[in-house]
Amino acid sequence: MRILLIGAGGVGDAIAKIAARRDFFDHMVVSDYDEARARRTVGAISEAHGPDVAARFSAATIDAGDIDAVRAAVQDHGATHVMNAVEPRFVPTVFAGAFAGGADYLDMAMSLSRPHPTDPYRQPGVTLGEEQFGAAADWEKAGRLALVGMGVEPGLSDVFARYACDNLFDEVDELGTRDGANLVVRNANGDEIFAPSFSIWTTIEECLNPPVIWEKDVGFFTTPPFSEPEVFEFPDGIGPVECVNVEHEEVLLMPRWCDARRVTFKYGLGEEFIGVLRVLHTLGLDSTEPVAVRSPDGRVNVAPRDVVAAVLPDPASIGPIMTGKTCAGLAVTGTKDGRRRRVYLYHVSDNEWTMRNYGTQCVVWQTALGPVIALELLAKQVWAGSGVLGPEAFPAEPFLELMQADESHGGYGQPWGLREDDPTS
Amino acid sequence: MRILLIGAGGVGDAIAKIAARRDFFDHMVVSDYDEARARRTVGAISEAHGPDVAARFSAATIDAGDIDAVRAAVQDHGATHVMNAVEPRFVPTVFAGAFAGGADYLDMAMSLSRPHPTDPYRQPGVTLGEEQFGAAADWEKAGRLALVGMGVEPGLSDVFARYACDNLFDEVDELGTRDGANLVVRNANGDEIFAPSFSIWTTIEECLNPPVIWEKDVGFFTTPPFSEPEVFEFPDGIGPVECVNVEHEEVLLMPRWCDARRVTFKYGLGEEFIGVLRVLHTLGLDSTEPVAVRSPDGRVNVAPRDVVAAVLPDPASIGPIMTGKTCAGLAVTGTKDGRRRRVYLYHVSDNEWTMRNYGTQCVVWQTALGPVIALELLAKQVWAGSGVLGPEAFPAEPFLELMQADESHGGYGQPWGLREDDPTS
Repeated sequence: MRILLIGAGGVGDAIAKIAARRDFFDHMVVSDYDEARARRTVGAISEAHGPDVAARFSAATIDAGDIDAVRAAVQDHGATHVMNAVEPRFVPTVFAGAFAGGADYLDMAMSLSRPHPTDPYRQPGVTLGEEQFGAAADWEKAGRLALVGMGVEPGLSDVFARYACDNLFDEVDELGTRDGANLVVRNANGDEIFAPSFSIWTTIEECLNPPVIWEKDVGFFTTPPFSEPEVFEFPDGIGPVECVNVEHEEVLLMPRWCDARRVTFKYGLGEEFIGVLRVLHTLGLDSTEPVAVRSPDGRVNVAPRDVVAAVLPDPASIGPIMTGKTCAGLAVTGTKDGRRRRVYLYHVSDNEWTMRNYGTQCVVWQTALGPVIALELLAKQVWAGSGVLGPEAFPAEPFLELMQADESHGGYGQPWGLREDDPTS
Repeated sequence: MRILLIGAGGVGDAIAKIAARRDFFDHMVVSDYDEARARRTVGAISEAHGPDVAARFSAATIDAGDIDAVRAAVQDHGATHVMNAVEPRFVPTVFAGAFAGGADYLDMAMSLSRPHPTDPYRQPGVTLGEEQFGAAADWEKAGRLALVGMGVEPGLSDVFARYACDNLFDEVDELGTRDGANLVVRNANGDEIFAPSFSIWTTIEECLNPPVIWEKDVGFFTTPPFSEPEVFEFPDGIGPVECVNVEHEEVLLMPRWCDARRVTFKYGLGEEFIGVLRVLHTLGLDSTEPVAVRSPDGRVNVAPRDVVAAVLPDPASIGPIMTGKTCAGLAVTGTKDGRRRRVYLYHVSDNEWTMRNYGTQCVVWQTALGPVIALELLAKQVWAGSGVLGPEAFPAEPFLELMQADESHGGYGQPWGLREDDPTS
């Protein structure tokens, strides 16, 4: 397996660092629009693991927005798999470039949605991943695989969904992804600062788009942002966090392969963050349409959302000043052997641990874990398929076993939890 | 009198339009960094009043940030008075350029403050106007006048202060400027939108700087932003509005010429607006330091605050979609003839009226009224002086009489109000 990793930002960097401890692949090309970032990642691997391991990595420049540049990179490097780790707006070009180049493809976020033109808060317009699933026939015909939404959420959450449907329930009422954290970032004076732990560009995209919900009897429908607030109790000392509906890939993926009455995604944003997003939206600072602005260099055009991203700390850089844990999981309700059941399947990532072991902050690291495990399962042909498939299309047990097993036993040493909740609550 | 008006934004445009109905001056050069804006103003005057009136106006380009450009413009146009109507950050260059060119000078906002480096929310650093008052000796020696803070607030509020001290009180406890409005801006669908009625750049500057307060026994001191919230009852149907301390020139000006125990400024921002400002500050979007941002034109440097200004509607353009009134005034408490007294001196500007009569929204128009009245009083030598002086340094009665008198009797037809409030409340 020869992997072309596109994007050496927080998550791309972590994917390479996690992969550096595994031997399932022959070579990984770490590429980025800014080659210095790619070289930094390879340099860190060389420092941590020495020249032999580093020899399996190389750095390159790439323009993820250019289909032909992606195709050329795939062919020049003889890549068998493209691992997409750039912002979701580049999904169409990386996806098409991988196909044109003849490689299989993985990503952690799907092609972007477009709201319904006239009724955005009730009807979906173009849904997440719709463009990619539209190309499924081509991928099948070519006998090639695009594994989409294979991060932590989407990704691990979808693996949990398949596991729950196969093993824990006879009938599923709701597959509800629930994501929450107790992360705090402090400046040098010890004051809490506003520093999102994930790309603000992506966070704005998912939080301000109309949340999509799936119901068996209704199909897909949308709501206004931040709908159906719910306080969810997260494990491992994180505790209760207010969660709201957010547009997310799970809702588009799970119904394709899992039988459930309802599929939702709720994100534990917390009040302050919701307030910030509301203001950015009210002022139009979430817009990706460039506006003309005076500047020291004269009049320039910038997208307000890019400016918001530029003023906030780089999520990849806040690890050392962040404390706390983040939890990704799936709450499932339904029946088993005629009895009501409610479980929460989850994985917790502790920033102190990820920083000590990988020099990577926990949210980014947790996102990077799933793709490496998936690549290993594909390399070993434990997972195989063709077309455009979500994680639910593959058996969940081998993924969860490989994730949980100690490193001394060839695993990733990342246990996951199953909490039995009161089904009447 | 030959006036060089610098700045043809909302307020500058309104100054020219108000002046077009008066005959106290010989010529007004309307200048702007963007000459098209200056020509638009002169064109509007020509349309409204015909070629004879328009002949007393001309349009020019100017760089308000360049002392020598201002000096040259003063001399080329033979200006006797410079009317500064650009953003306060340009005060130092316009102020110095006017002096170098040999003209008298008026502005509506004073040189900017700089917070105390170590104790910003208790001690003032460099105060508003400090740089200008530092040059007072030069202006006096040259026998020339710089009339600073001569808009509506500061400006009319300071005229009210002098009037109250001279005529309404024997002893003054507090001179408290109170500004509030019930303005609403709606988009084409009739939905309320976020559209500040005054330069967001200036609003951020005044609202996020530490508010300054003056007390006779203490001197100047500062507080955290938005301190001492107070619900103030505004007249003319505006009603109660939550007001908070905001850094403003009145607090620096009034104590120089009026005897009071305490001087404050509170702005009726309202909760939503305070929330927006807090978020802009939390994220650093209020910053005027350029940051590097990717853009369609490659990497560019922009100041986040300029981007915020660029995404919001131009305050000068929202008049047609705005409804309501704005009130500028001064609440005074003290004693008269041994009895406690509490009054509110105010002027209300109704957007419907200013749009119909001047095609200008009410906040901008109200700001532009004071400078024209002051220029007329200076032209007629009713007001005269040298040095760097605030409006309080001049007798208030002639100003208020000229403002109030009907246009048919040579006045501006703008009545002001005096409300007697319960001194025990």
